[in-house]
Amino acid sequence: MTKSEVIEQLLPKRRSAPRAAATAFAPANIALCKYWGKRDAELNLPTASSLSISLGKLGSEVTLAPRAGHDRFTLNGQLIAPESSFARRAAAFLGLFRPAPDFYYDVTATNTVPTAAGLASSASGFAALTLALNELFAWKLDRRKLSILARLGSGSASRSLFEGFVEWHAGRAPTGMDSFAEPLATKWPDLRIGLVVLSDKEKPIGSRDAMAQTRDTSPLYAVWPETVARDLVALKEAISQRDFTQLGEVAEGNALAMHATMLAARPAILYFLPESIEAIHTVHALRAEGCEVYFTMDAGPNLKLLFRKADLRYVIKGFPEVQVVAPFAT
Amino acid sequence: MTKSEVIEQLLPKRRSAPRAAATAFAPANIALCKYWGKRDAELNLPTASSLSISLGKLGSEVTLAPRAGHDRFTLNGQLIAPESSFARRAAAFLGLFRPAPDFYYDVTATNTVPTAAGLASSASGFAALTLALNELFAWKLDRRKLSILARLGSGSASRSLFEGFVEWHAGRAPTGMDSFAEPLATKWPDLRIGLVVLSDKEKPIGSRDAMAQTRDTSPLYAVWPETVARDLVALKEAISQRDFTQLGEVAEGNALAMHATMLAARPAILYFLPESIEAIHTVHALRAEGCEVYFTMDAGPNLKLLFRKADLRYVIKGFPEVQVVAPFAT
Repeated sequence: MTKSEVIEQLLPKRRSAPRAAATAFAPANIALCKYWGKRDAELNLPTASSLSISLGKLGSEVTLAPRAGHDRFTLNGQLIAPESSFARRAAAFLGLFRPAPDFYYDVTATNTVPTAAGLASSASGFAALTLALNELFAWKLDRRKLSILARLGSGSASRSLFEGFVEWHAGRAPTGMDSFAEPLATKWPDLRIGLVVLSDKEKPIGSRDAMAQTRDTSPLYAVWPETVARDLVALKEAISQRDFTQLGEVAEGNALAMHATMLAARPAILYFLPESIEAIHTVHALRAEGCEVYFTMDAGPNLKLLFRKADLRYVIKGFPEVQVVAPFAT
Repeated sequence: MTKSEVIEQLLPKRRSAPRAAATAFAPANIALCKYWGKRDAELNLPTASSLSISLGKLGSEVTLAPRAGHDRFTLNGQLIAPESSFARRAAAFLGLFRPAPDFYYDVTATNTVPTAAGLASSASGFAALTLALNELFAWKLDRRKLSILARLGSGSASRSLFEGFVEWHAGRAPTGMDSFAEPLATKWPDLRIGLVVLSDKEKPIGSRDAMAQTRDTSPLYAVWPETVARDLVALKEAISQRDFTQLGEVAEGNALAMHATMLAARPAILYFLPESIEAIHTVHALRAEGCEVYFTMDAGPNLKLLFRKADLRYVIKGFPEVQVVAPFAT
């Protein structure tokens, strides 16, 4: 099935004329149980379900307006060259939603995630783009359907449609109509996320390619889906019981298992920098001293810490540069 | 089956009186396809076969002599306390070979591997101890049987009974009588091993415990035996065809796969230090520049490089402190 066919099924039959402009915001999210491997590369359907926490005010704001001639992209106040990776991916996505062949978009995006924060902006970016499209054309789709549309831009964008803890169901249908995100009910006000930026250098390999190379060459990838299945159950249990130790242990274990599958790819995919290992040892040293802090890592060298409000000052001792997010702050 | 029962089957029925003293040497070895996981902890029977290269003159020399009263251990010229880990493991092994309950050993061991070389001395140590016992009591056992005996002291010691490339067969028999080492015929004179010592600090966890924890808790361990099976075939093919690229790629991949299984253990076992990651990146940078060098790593932070004689000067540029071994130098 193609993206266009999925979209055809989801959008309202009766299409309205676009508004003059529409603006939407979506939060960044950090996976506690990782999305790593696709069962369908065209539709970004994952091999396994995943679970994330959204980052509140950190994310992307997108304003869309109709435009003649060609698409135009402005990111954080700067015009973006059409041949840049950002513009090409956004244009490919918007190309799925042109009411007429000569309909173009003026896209103004602002990331409230500091660019150097080591957070992927594609999740919040495609989620905000989807929400803005929904406004621009007054589709009035529910968030579940919007999460399916956002997924067509970037898999993890499906999770950025919601606040708090979010589960993205892998689903089984070839259409992906059962592969949507939904929020968990639990709120956890004293949960904190710490962003530890170790490098803003370009990654040796993007996560799309890394995912494919791992799936195709890593002997350890075979057991990744069942690892996720177990971790997901344990994480949801930890969240519903507010069991922070279990949450941290499973999230850290899941991230390391993901990096382990990459390390065993041939050739190996190594996102660790020396500083990453130093930071991991610091986390473990803090834990040994009684400060309950865990980490997760994505396809990059940076760490994201998980801890509770009461441990903030100890975490800062170990990581003076940490940027702290309170995902459930009101 | 117990160690004593195995020994009973292997030693000659007619026992000679001990000589006054006996001396033997065994080389250290580096696994290109790793021994990681036991099918029998009592007899040190491995889950999978492994393949190593012996390090020529780097190893252990052991002199044994009968002694009254209690065992005495001298290592590199220093008397060793009986409660030290070294003395306890050696005494437990020698305890299997006492012709009478009041028969004790005077053990003088010298490691020709620099202590700070980051090489395990237990393999060469138990192999040399076994060879010295064979001399002391004039058992006249062949090397295959001696490799079975040495294995009872330390699994990888079975491989240190031979020079050059050595395969240790996992075997299937509960007795372990089919789990012995034997040398491959191929010699490879321009092969070089580079020892890169990054830390001589004590390891966070010994390899015995790390092996057990990985087997018991790492979701990725399930596919380790089949990974080894594939790598072993590829390594033997590389060796018989003198295909250095294949040798290096498979050895490096196998080592990383082993560390990956540990990384996914819960809690994770992380032998990497920041310096290890830096060294790995240096190896990859050298390769990108055309210097064909690979690495392997054991249960510790240090790297062992694989390269050919012609690349020595480039390797030294990347690793000025490297200690170079020529395993087939005559």
